[in-house]
Amino acid sequence: MSMINHQFRLAARPVGLPKRSDWNYVEEPVRELAEGEILIKVLYVSLDPAMRGWMNDGKSYIKPVGIGEVMRAGGAGRVIASKNRNFNVGDHVYGTTGIQEYCISDGGGFTKVDPKLAPLPIYVGVLGMTGLTAYFGLLDVGQPKAGETVVVSGAAGATGSVAGQIAKIKGCRVVGIAGGPAKCQYLTKELGFDAAIDYKSEDVARALRTHCPKGIDVYFDNVGGEILDAVLAQINLGARIAICGAISQYNNTTPIKGPSNYLSLLINRATMRGFIVFDFASRYAEAGREMAGWLATGKLKSREDIVDGLQTFPETLLKLFKGENNGKLMIKVAEA
Amino acid sequence: MSMINHQFRLAARPVGLPKRSDWNYVEEPVRELAEGEILIKVLYVSLDPAMRGWMNDGKSYIKPVGIGEVMRAGGAGRVIASKNRNFNVGDHVYGTTGIQEYCISDGGGFTKVDPKLAPLPIYVGVLGMTGLTAYFGLLDVGQPKAGETVVVSGAAGATGSVAGQIAKIKGCRVVGIAGGPAKCQYLTKELGFDAAIDYKSEDVARALRTHCPKGIDVYFDNVGGEILDAVLAQINLGARIAICGAISQYNNTTPIKGPSNYLSLLINRATMRGFIVFDFASRYAEAGREMAGWLATGKLKSREDIVDGLQTFPETLLKLFKGENNGKLMIKVAEA
Repeated sequence: MSMINHQFRLAARPVGLPKRSDWNYVEEPVRELAEGEILIKVLYVSLDPAMRGWMNDGKSYIKPVGIGEVMRAGGAGRVIASKNRNFNVGDHVYGTTGIQEYCISDGGGFTKVDPKLAPLPIYVGVLGMTGLTAYFGLLDVGQPKAGETVVVSGAAGATGSVAGQIAKIKGCRVVGIAGGPAKCQYLTKELGFDAAIDYKSEDVARALRTHCPKGIDVYFDNVGGEILDAVLAQINLGARIAICGAISQYNNTTPIKGPSNYLSLLINRATMRGFIVFDFASRYAEAGREMAGWLATGKLKSREDIVDGLQTFPETLLKLFKGENNGKLMIKVAEA
Repeated sequence: MSMINHQFRLAARPVGLPKRSDWNYVEEPVRELAEGEILIKVLYVSLDPAMRGWMNDGKSYIKPVGIGEVMRAGGAGRVIASKNRNFNVGDHVYGTTGIQEYCISDGGGFTKVDPKLAPLPIYVGVLGMTGLTAYFGLLDVGQPKAGETVVVSGAAGATGSVAGQIAKIKGCRVVGIAGGPAKCQYLTKELGFDAAIDYKSEDVARALRTHCPKGIDVYFDNVGGEILDAVLAQINLGARIAICGAISQYNNTTPIKGPSNYLSLLINRATMRGFIVFDFASRYAEAGREMAGWLATGKLKSREDIVDGLQTFPETLLKLFKGENNGKLMIKVAEA
């Protein structure tokens, strides 16, 4: 093996939006496998808002990426060498590959996927952590009932779009909040949302009053900030707010804006609950089967925003924070 | 009947702390009873932080007190005339009397109490809405398990002191946050709290780290503001935060301070839930029996801060917001 592995390693903890100088793009030879290990040629890597959190120091739900370490990322690839009896050369796998061309693993956390059943980007997106986050956050935390009104922020994003579609499948009225007319059209025309609110051009509070005439029962929050406050002001008795993320706050250099309207939880006996998809690992298979069924019958649609070339990573990642991605953002690292 | 009824009626919606000019102290003759009504001579009225919210306009969990209306308040008194077959002259009752000397009611919401079993102030306090709020907020929303760490703010207050004591009864480590050494001593020396933090003289975050070495599992919040943020930073996986009130924010003339650390809910898969005691009305009797038992066996202690004279109401109410009350605040309106 004289293969060269290109990698993005964290060079510095970013202040605000990550800059190219926060990364080191390095190359190193691929080392020999130890007993039990596999070598994966990475084909796609997933780019997710959560990655911004992993770059920060401090206690969180997962260890921060260390300075000098390969950036953590989900991805899919092909096993090209194996000293692990559970994986054969030629297997396709999904797991935590990192932002690099080749990944050596003991197989932990990797699952085999079948590219004949669905293209690899689907496994990285709607059938991966992204879709599972939407599934468990909406159904387990949000607990929507048919006829209720569900609001989703970051609704055209990878997780939000799946959460909203599952709410429609469950018989809810679904209102999505997204940035720009193209994303809003995508929600209503292609994904079947009942209404979409363009936060860049509309008064969100007023638009929520228009589109949620019976108030809001479930809120799936990806953004935090002013939009969370606008929703809190219009929740119903017993509402459930699932805190999935707060992308509006991730690159703040000032303190995070807490929800001023949180006492609406008291007035409305409502619940705000945070969740992490990892806690539902024992049910991934069950959820994946159900979502694959919805995909197959056209009830669930996905869109991927695939950018070519590992070396674009620092700039491609910023698309998430600028709202420039259209669908699940990933990088195509290699052809096959 | 030529009795004169003195009353406090709301004159203006307060900005910040309520002033005497926000009230009209008026007198009117007691009118004749209609069929089904009772006349109650009010003996004690309850003063509660929630009253500040009832003075504001806008949607809440209960209708605002209208300008010109008698101020809403819980209270206890004696039936002195009755045209209602469910109540006899001489019965003692607890219910919503309002801030006045005489109350006419159809009996709705009034329950009979027996002053031979417990003094009337106990029914107004620990066996009234105050204690029931602590009971359901701690047990149903907080769901403490033996061995867990429970933090209570406003811990020397009427509700907080009961919540903390119930947590002790359930086998938890209990840390109270209160203002001043006398209140803190009361918590640890008289009520059996494991530790008390004086927010007026201590760094709350540091003191929480000292007194909650295993982190915080349940937080019963009466105050909001900076203390809520300090607690959020130290919660454990799966923590439950019961939002009972936010007295630090009730008299704000600036926007309410939302909890900047709310994303700790996500990191820790934690829940923040608001509640209102009224939702548990079907279980008041059950809870009251259990609490009366704890009182009888000395497991639960109560302290009342009883101020003489209805006419002191505007100034007495402010004791709550200045943290000057020692125990459950009420006004003694008449001797018997």
